[in-house]
Amino acid sequence: MEPVNLALVGTGDWGANLLRNFAALPEARVVAICDADPARLARAKGVVPQAVAVDDARKLLDVPGLEAVVIAAPAPAHAPLAKLFLEAGKDVYVEKPFTLDVADAEALVALADAKSRILMVGHLLIHHPAVVRLKAMIDAGELGTVHYVYSQRVNLGKVRKDENALWSFAPHDLSVMLHFLGGEPVDVSARGSAFLQKGIEDVVFASLSWADGRMAHAHVSWLDPHKLRRFTVVGAKKMALFDDMEPSEKLKIYDRGVDPAAGEFVDFARSLTVRQGDVWIPKLDGAEPLRLECRHFVECVRTRKTPRTDGRDGLRVVKVLAAAQASLEAHGAPVRLDALEGTRS
Amino acid sequence: MEPVNLALVGTGDWGANLLRNFAALPEARVVAICDADPARLARAKGVVPQAVAVDDARKLLDVPGLEAVVIAAPAPAHAPLAKLFLEAGKDVYVEKPFTLDVADAEALVALADAKSRILMVGHLLIHHPAVVRLKAMIDAGELGTVHYVYSQRVNLGKVRKDENALWSFAPHDLSVMLHFLGGEPVDVSARGSAFLQKGIEDVVFASLSWADGRMAHAHVSWLDPHKLRRFTVVGAKKMALFDDMEPSEKLKIYDRGVDPAAGEFVDFARSLTVRQGDVWIPKLDGAEPLRLECRHFVECVRTRKTPRTDGRDGLRVVKVLAAAQASLEAHGAPVRLDALEGTRS
Amino acid sequence: MEPVNLALVGTGDWGANLLRNFAALPEARVVAICDADPARLARAKGVVPQAVAVDDARKLLDVPGLEAVVIAAPAPAHAPLAKLFLEAGKDVYVEKPFTLDVADAEALVALADAKSRILMVGHLLIHHPAVVRLKAMIDAGELGTVHYVYSQRVNLGKVRKDENALWSFAPHDLSVMLHFLGGEPVDVSARGSAFLQKGIEDVVFASLSWADGRMAHAHVSWLDPHKLRRFTVVGAKKMALFDDMEPSEKLKIYDRGVDPAAGEFVDFARSLTVRQGDVWIPKLDGAEPLRLECRHFVECVRTRKTPRTDGRDGLRVVKVLAAAQASLEAHGAPVRLDALEGTRS
Amino acid sequence: MEPVNLALVGTGDWGANLLRNFAALPEARVVAICDADPARLARAKGVVPQAVAVDDARKLLDVPGLEAVVIAAPAPAHAPLAKLFLEAGKDVYVEKPFTLDVADAEALVALADAKSRILMVGHLLIHHPAVVRLKAMIDAGELGTVHYVYSQRVNLGKVRKDENALWSFAPHDLSVMLHFLGGEPVDVSARGSAFLQKGIEDVVFASLSWADGRMAHAHVSWLDPHKLRRFTVVGAKKMALFDDMEPSEKLKIYDRGVDPAAGEFVDFARSLTVRQGDVWIPKLDGAEPLRLECRHFVECVRTRKTPRTDGRDGLRVVKVLAAAQASLEAHGAPVRLDALEGTRS
Repeated sequence: MEPVNLALVGTGDWGANLLRNFAALPEARVVAICDADPARLARAKGVVPQAVAVDDARKLLDVPGLEAVVIAAPAPAHAPLAKLFLEAGKDVYVEKPFTLDVADAEALVALADAKSRILMVGHLLIHHPAVVRLKAMIDAGELGTVHYVYSQRVNLGKVRKDENALWSFAPHDLSVMLHFLGGEPVDVSARGSAFLQKGIEDVVFASLSWADGRMAHAHVSWLDPHKLRRFTVVGAKKMALFDDMEPSEKLKIYDRGVDPAAGEFVDFARSLTVRQGDVWIPKLDGAEPLRLECRHFVECVRTRKTPRTDGRDGLRVVKVLAAAQASLEAHGAPVRLDALEGTRS
Repeated sequence: MEPVNLALVGTGDWGANLLRNFAALPEARVVAICDADPARLARAKGVVPQAVAVDDARKLLDVPGLEAVVIAAPAPAHAPLAKLFLEAGKDVYVEKPFTLDVADAEALVALADAKSRILMVGHLLIHHPAVVRLKAMIDAGELGTVHYVYSQRVNLGKVRKDENALWSFAPHDLSVMLHFLGGEPVDVSARGSAFLQKGIEDVVFASLSWADGRMAHAHVSWLDPHKLRRFTVVGAKKMALFDDMEPSEKLKIYDRGVDPAAGEFVDFARSLTVRQGDVWIPKLDGAEPLRLECRHFVECVRTRKTPRTDGRDGLRVVKVLAAAQASLEAHGAPVRLDALEGTRS
Repeated sequence: MEPVNLALVGTGDWGANLLRNFAALPEARVVAICDADPARLARAKGVVPQAVAVDDARKLLDVPGLEAVVIAAPAPAHAPLAKLFLEAGKDVYVEKPFTLDVADAEALVALADAKSRILMVGHLLIHHPAVVRLKAMIDAGELGTVHYVYSQRVNLGKVRKDENALWSFAPHDLSVMLHFLGGEPVDVSARGSAFLQKGIEDVVFASLSWADGRMAHAHVSWLDPHKLRRFTVVGAKKMALFDDMEPSEKLKIYDRGVDPAAGEFVDFARSLTVRQGDVWIPKLDGAEPLRLECRHFVECVRTRKTPRTDGRDGLRVVKVLAAAQASLEAHGAPVRLDALEGTRS
Repeated sequence: MEPVNLALVGTGDWGANLLRNFAALPEARVVAICDADPARLARAKGVVPQAVAVDDARKLLDVPGLEAVVIAAPAPAHAPLAKLFLEAGKDVYVEKPFTLDVADAEALVALADAKSRILMVGHLLIHHPAVVRLKAMIDAGELGTVHYVYSQRVNLGKVRKDENALWSFAPHDLSVMLHFLGGEPVDVSARGSAFLQKGIEDVVFASLSWADGRMAHAHVSWLDPHKLRRFTVVGAKKMALFDDMEPSEKLKIYDRGVDPAAGEFVDFARSLTVRQGDVWIPKLDGAEPLRLECRHFVECVRTRKTPRTDGRDGLRVVKVLAAAQASLEAHGAPVRLDALEGTRS
């Protein structure tokens, strides 16, 4: 397989991570990089000395042989940049959040379809070995119906001034929840508060409901004494914990046995001190999720298969984010996804 | 100090705990016990052989010298029983939840006032040495303004058929949140779902907002692989964790230093791996919260001082529970406390 | 099955635990208790009001129908008391440490044999569900050859003035090690130090070697910031951790795969961050080890079967303790078990 | 300050780490690298393209302006290489273990003295912020007399065929123990066993005794289900835990209060569930120990000050290693340091 010629737009902290990974892939060749900041651009150039370095994304259109573009620019630039490159016939990878509104996401999905281009969104966790394993178990029915999923993504860390904790952190959680629960929630209720900067929520709690009663809940914050990155999945037959802060035991599967039969008072008080079943911690592939994600993009470009996290996935997440933001602004009043402006009927 | 003569109504699991504690207090004398179930009553009688045992609470009114009554009957009986004994001039301790609606709670508070009786509600955690210590630190300004508090009370445990996870678990969390944040929230938004039994939520997420932007969030569930009993308190100057599942390090105080000054992009990325300050784990009094609570009631009866968790505290918690329940039924639409039926204007 | 009539000698802290458990067993009837301390005896009498209470163990010989005696007196009294009751034809349970020297232990084993009496030693952990399960796995070959076992039993706790940390704590560890590894070690090397009281070691490290190279190591201390109660078992095929401080996940089984083949440099550096295999946490019976132990004694008395922890097990542990003590006094010089004074040739 | 011109001998895994750190230091200039393996040498050359690359250490003597040499070759080559460069008037950094026998270590110390050269040994942990902090506390008397220190350095990891777990792992532990306890132990007792390869111990337990009764104990193994890197320090006034696997809370200080006065039975049973005092987790400098170590060497070269881990420290550790090895071969018989062959009287 001939390496894919690609360009990177945006060489900030996360862009630098993408660059390092794509540069290390034998299946890829980084032929161009772009950043308006000369210092960052120079630093990135050190990693891929052979690449063309430009300060304006439009100049990438002149790079001969360019097949694909990886967009790691600030979020507001995602939509116009993706549009630019899709229209120019390039395959496109966009970092999360895919776009900042639903109409943009819908337009990009339609454009990629029209142009038959690969459009992949950087929902990193979908490529995480623990998520891959858990999704396979769910699909095989091993957990039974997934009743609900909740996540915590909190730490004392980098405070953004351009986006709130919802848009900065929650795309990760929402992409995984949608992946595990399937379909789309009916509505979202979100509450949060801004303590450090006016109008930028530091902490957000968001709840998603499905039509059949299943639900999900995300807690995100950058103002917290703990560093937590965890998902709890409660199924009718088994439960699971994916804890990304654990150095090795990242995925735990819990057997359990609730018997709601006969309308009886179900007492399994002994489980307060003794679990209801075995716990199993499967060995996972130790590969880095980011490396797997980068390789997946290159592979999709070369084989034309639909990415595991394509534009439609990105759109679903953006719809939930937009609904959550609307609910946040309405102090938690539930917002239906089908009521979002810009949503196609 | 002459021991207080008291009676216990309800000798189920929790009633038996109360009985054991009151019976062990030199400051109390359990002179009567009451339960409609003969087997439970006989078992309780074994603990306090000298006590009168009756099968109907009204018979307690004939017990000579009875000063106070401890009510650990099922929740729907709390209000009528408390009314009965307050009217008869007894001091009353009521288990949580105080009552099942706001009007009842208001009426009991008014009745206790009119009769100058002690009315205490079993908000156990307010007597917990970790909560006492943390409250003292908050009052002394050591944490700075408390921005928000969130709690998790989840396990795989006893499933109730008579009340949902909100009413069964959350009184503990809400009493502590109100204690730490002070005053009353403006509104509550709650979402949950019932998986095991129709109409009885197994899991509930509830969010409380104060008028000035401070907030609290409770997550309760009896359908969870973990057993968690924890509160996180985020203050402007320090943060705290109260984890009641820790055998000895129940309270942790975290120094931190966020500088939101000057509208600057605040980057303290190093805190992702290195804390922003020292952590301090104070030594706590090892006494059992339940024993402290029982002794506090007896002391209030004897000294006529207002209990740390009096009827007004009980009422505040019932108002939040009622608002949360109303929100739950409205799929998360925020419910204002001042809009609750039965609330006095 | 007719309940076994038994007497308890020694009603201190641990004796009180035994009393509570035997008193609660339908298969046992505590007919007599003995303690030289009137206050303790009175307290114990409260638990078994129908029992005869005496202040001298010899008076128990007059108790009609007495079948078995449970000895929880101070360690120096174990041997003379056990001798007294075995000679009188009673079945005997002796708390750990069985005896304080090898000759006494050998004499008691011989006496029990001669009199055809049950002689059981209180090696509590052998009755622990985690140890029972792990022993079954070892016997079934699931761990492969057990290479070595090491334990930690440390805390900041009760300091004894009558015995060092070796005799106070290590009987538990040694009984489990001998149970898992089988047979007897060739020699023992032990080192320790006395910091709080002259001549009474607060901390001891003891290493046991088997003739074929297998080994065990115990670390005991009452001068430690941690509270640890854990055994690590390293087998050729699997490893196991028994951590008795874990509230529910007490036993963990680790798959692994070392390949020492061909004299090659074996590099499995990836296991530094990723385990070599699955981890499995089996659900254990939640029963209390002490209750299981008490019931086992009563069952052996009634059925005449040899206890799981009989006098021979007690003797083996005493031999290791004696060798460890001799090594301790020789600053760690290894002491062979076959060189112990009082050991029969 | 003019950068120090230095060469690196040995570019294997650990050498590559040293190279990356020295190359990133503004105070250093890597002017030459040496490795007999062409592939490794080429890879290292990629990091410092301007450096001279040679396949034989003697060729480094021809590099103009070379001031200092960093030796990360296999352990048997440490002594001859250090001798070569010290004799040539270079300052020298040697990785651990410093040498494989005491006589070599003594000779190198004497040679460095005679030539007035800097001789530093790679005892990395002495530069760890947690060790630096704890040593300062010990020196200030905050822990009281340090009674004993014990360490665990175990994992399921890289198995060496050229050296046992003692020589591979324990230099880290021993250097820290000597640092904390001061002076030299009188003797060492060590026991271990070889399961994977004949004659190469996979697990070793070593105990060090000081003349005044203080002691230390190290447990090292590469055949263990856990990954542990921890030191426990028990002082007369406070205790400390340094756990290098903790992502942020690496150092914990425990207050305690034992009262051994008056020969009394000291009962602090409550500490079984409640600590005897506060716990304090100081914020540590987040700098990488390896970077600090490399900078320290360069600084010593430039300022001629004695390194924190000089040849004498290296010698002390080698003496303990040699005594432990001798004890290991004598099945644990204690070996006195003053009885080691090659030790100067």
